[in-house]
Amino acid sequence: MSSQPATASRFDQLRRIESSRIFQTAVISIIILSALTIGAKTYDLPPLTVQALSLMDWGITFFFLIEILFRFTACHDKKRFLMDGWNLFDTLVVVGSLIPLDNSDAVLLGRLLRVFRVLRLVSVVPELRFLINSLLKAIPRMGYIALLMFIIFYIYAAMGSMFFANVDEELWGDVAISMLTLFRVATFEDWTDVMYQTMEFYPLSWIYYLSFIFLTAFVFLNMMIGAILEVMSEDQKAEEAQQAHSERDEIARQLKAVQEQLNNLSQQISEQSGRR
Amino acid sequence: MSSQPATASRFDQLRRIESSRIFQTAVISIIILSALTIGAKTYDLPPLTVQALSLMDWGITFFFLIEILFRFTACHDKKRFLMDGWNLFDTLVVVGSLIPLDNSDAVLLGRLLRVFRVLRLVSVVPELRFLINSLLKAIPRMGYIALLMFIIFYIYAAMGSMFFANVDEELWGDVAISMLTLFRVATFEDWTDVMYQTMEFYPLSWIYYLSFIFLTAFVFLNMMIGAILEVMSEDQKAEEAQQAHSERDEIARQLKAVQEQLNNLSQQISEQSGRR
Amino acid sequence: MSSQPATASRFDQLRRIESSRIFQTAVISIIILSALTIGAKTYDLPPLTVQALSLMDWGITFFFLIEILFRFTACHDKKRFLMDGWNLFDTLVVVGSLIPLDNSDAVLLGRLLRVFRVLRLVSVVPELRFLINSLLKAIPRMGYIALLMFIIFYIYAAMGSMFFANVDEELWGDVAISMLTLFRVATFEDWTDVMYQTMEFYPLSWIYYLSFIFLTAFVFLNMMIGAILEVMSEDQKAEEAQQAHSERDEIARQLKAVQEQLNNLSQQISEQSGRR
Amino acid sequence: MSSQPATASRFDQLRRIESSRIFQTAVISIIILSALTIGAKTYDLPPLTVQALSLMDWGITFFFLIEILFRFTACHDKKRFLMDGWNLFDTLVVVGSLIPLDNSDAVLLGRLLRVFRVLRLVSVVPELRFLINSLLKAIPRMGYIALLMFIIFYIYAAMGSMFFANVDEELWGDVAISMLTLFRVATFEDWTDVMYQTMEFYPLSWIYYLSFIFLTAFVFLNMMIGAILEVMSEDQKAEEAQQAHSERDEIARQLKAVQEQLNNLSQQISEQSGRR
Repeated sequence: MSSQPATASRFDQLRRIESSRIFQTAVISIIILSALTIGAKTYDLPPLTVQALSLMDWGITFFFLIEILFRFTACHDKKRFLMDGWNLFDTLVVVGSLIPLDNSDAVLLGRLLRVFRVLRLVSVVPELRFLINSLLKAIPRMGYIALLMFIIFYIYAAMGSMFFANVDEELWGDVAISMLTLFRVATFEDWTDVMYQTMEFYPLSWIYYLSFIFLTAFVFLNMMIGAILEVMSEDQKAEEAQQAHSERDEIARQLKAVQEQLNNLSQQISEQSGRR
Repeated sequence: MSSQPATASRFDQLRRIESSRIFQTAVISIIILSALTIGAKTYDLPPLTVQALSLMDWGITFFFLIEILFRFTACHDKKRFLMDGWNLFDTLVVVGSLIPLDNSDAVLLGRLLRVFRVLRLVSVVPELRFLINSLLKAIPRMGYIALLMFIIFYIYAAMGSMFFANVDEELWGDVAISMLTLFRVATFEDWTDVMYQTMEFYPLSWIYYLSFIFLTAFVFLNMMIGAILEVMSEDQKAEEAQQAHSERDEIARQLKAVQEQLNNLSQQISEQSGRR
Repeated sequence: MSSQPATASRFDQLRRIESSRIFQTAVISIIILSALTIGAKTYDLPPLTVQALSLMDWGITFFFLIEILFRFTACHDKKRFLMDGWNLFDTLVVVGSLIPLDNSDAVLLGRLLRVFRVLRLVSVVPELRFLINSLLKAIPRMGYIALLMFIIFYIYAAMGSMFFANVDEELWGDVAISMLTLFRVATFEDWTDVMYQTMEFYPLSWIYYLSFIFLTAFVFLNMMIGAILEVMSEDQKAEEAQQAHSERDEIARQLKAVQEQLNNLSQQISEQSGRR
Repeated sequence: MSSQPATASRFDQLRRIESSRIFQTAVISIIILSALTIGAKTYDLPPLTVQALSLMDWGITFFFLIEILFRFTACHDKKRFLMDGWNLFDTLVVVGSLIPLDNSDAVLLGRLLRVFRVLRLVSVVPELRFLINSLLKAIPRMGYIALLMFIIFYIYAAMGSMFFANVDEELWGDVAISMLTLFRVATFEDWTDVMYQTMEFYPLSWIYYLSFIFLTAFVFLNMMIGAILEVMSEDQKAEEAQQAHSERDEIARQLKAVQEQLNNLSQQISEQSGRR
């Protein structure tokens, strides 16, 4: 029974270290250093620097391992620690870079995992974490619009590869390639070149392109407006409700005072009447 | 008289089947399958697969026919069923693919009709139906802006083909071609190539292009802002009206209580006065 | 003295004709016909059709002349008629096409004036007139942002022609050409081609382009946001003020009733006191 | 002691001159003249005009020097004058153009400093000053989104130069070049050319480009929405709070009157009771 408070105090101590500014700054610095080494490796470097970089890389991996173990130890509720998406991501990235890799394909995978370390910056800086969470929240509300967009793309792609496959196999060969071509049209990237080519064989094919552009632009515009309005009305509802309450409460309090005064008055009169 | 309740109960049964999740899922699955076969046909396939696909195609057409007949039978008000745009669209697409087609042009039409089957997904999933309906509602409010946009395009196209027809027949040949070229300029697609070409003959023609870009961008921006505001104010009006009501009602109720108290008081005084 | 009421009634009659739906529809139809003839002239036509078109053109000019004279006669306040921008525009366009033109340059001017006839559609359809008026109202609030944008363009253009004039005379020859090139960069039109060219001589010139793109995009974004907010807050202020008034008035009315009741009560008591 | 009021009055006089419309107009005119001379120098001019321009340039520099000294003298609190960012900027630009420059590099620097004189327009026109201040206020709220954007760019650039460096050294050579290429992709500038090139070696690389475009567009969209909402809610809060106050105050005043009436009534009754 005496060990428990000791553990608790040790926990508190660990927690205090974890949430200290020095610890946070150290972690962020190491992540930025890790990002810089990843960037540095894309340049042609003298062999000595490459060796120094790979040494530093191991150092960083080791630091990250220690850091995660430390955070795991400092955490009271081990289960919740593992359930948290950010912690899982951190663990995966760090453990992934520990696996020794030999063949070239695996080396590429290892380098890729090291790139994702930069994302750890998001998991460590609370403001970025909050931002990402709010972005993730925005995805479902765009779900059905995205589905509608996909249906429009699919139908136009099916029509496109049906009619224009003979015109240019590389742009309209099958549904998948056609969808990529349509995405290109939707970004206005040399879309007239695509159109002029098919217009030589189908002079009315401009209807196809213009209707597609108008449809996607229209749906996209409405999606944007919808997103703005949804977030706004949520914000506003909360705010207005709160404000209205405070306002109503003020007046309601005053009215209650009036009612009380009236009660007193009534009592006064009946007392006066009783006294007589 | 005894047949009527029996029919009603049979109706209810059909309706229950129609609105059951299993039925809905089956229909959606078949539509997605239909979309996949349409996509698959755009690839080069071995003859056996092609045969299998066309067999499947007939199966899907048959299923859709049964489904529509079933929905028609399950519907009480036959007239309203036919008046509904979505049902009409479904019927047209299904009946259209039943017509046997021989010559190549008609085959293409038949394939096109099959492509539109994918749109049935919109008519079946309620969320997408709601989305489309709200998009359709947005069209009229953009009507006059679209007309204004068209007038701008028409005037610039007439001017363009008047001055630049000699410069490049393919870009400024007549009003229709000029409007297509101007749409290209409005999407910023290689618009400087078009401009540099005409600037060789008319050095001041950059005024034409810049004024056009500013005008369309300005009108488009205002259209967007207008659309956002219109939807927003509609939303807000409804919300605020409701909120204001609930707020006012609360205070009004309290005030009524005060007035009642005052009435009682007045009665109390006159009673007291009468008693004496 | 007897002539005045006669004139008034004749005025009323003219006014009634002018605002009748048949008259309005006729004017709009003729404007659309005029637009179509302008469009038709851009095509290669057989000589007979060309003759018919020029005959029709004179008919349309004559109709417009009659229409303006009619509207001028039907208008009570002649001075206000001439002060109105739309009427002035109408008169100018119609009178302009009456002047007989011989040499080729003047013919082009005459055709140009005929093109502007299409704009008469805006002056005749009230909804479009309202739209244009509201667009014009939006211009001053964008004035200072536009000035700021111009200053940014001017500074970058001066820097551009200072440094890059030797690299490509056609893109950076002087301030005016540089501003056109920068507008091209701002629309993302082959801007990397421009950048890669100057980066060969000035490897750090990407800073110039990126800072320019960020600055213009940032200012533009803020302008858009500002415009949305300004229109919105105007809308809202009016609405809320009105709503708040109606709300407050309701409660104020009830409170007044309470105060009156209290006055009556006070009188009742003093009467009672006086009676005794 | 007699000198102080004299100084004060001289101060007032200077201040009056400084804030007079004539003085302001003169300064703005000279700045615009300065901008025009900068623009004129980018054209090929006859030697006489060049000499006239450089003479005018010295005149402008001299005028600016006098103007700043004048404003400094007219300012009561000398320290605050130097602390103000706009004044510092003005001083720097003017003093900078006074330094005599000989070698060609320094001449370019001198010309650059003269270009920045145009920015003085911003520091002199109060509306532009206000605009810039409000734009600067908008920067911090976009800070974390910009950081997130940078992380996305960095990760994709690291991956890009890892995989595609062999495909095209000029586009994917190292992290820095890759980021520039990705910025180009984000502006949709010939991005399909970049994609088609890498798709020859990595057929699935379209996933890389599409995911990048979706991510940046999504984050950018959310940033824009966030910015709109933040400014709006700030605006609204202030407005609503003020409006609600005035509304509540009105009703509260009326309620206070009611309470006072009740107090009077109560006193009346007790007086009546006491009199008896």
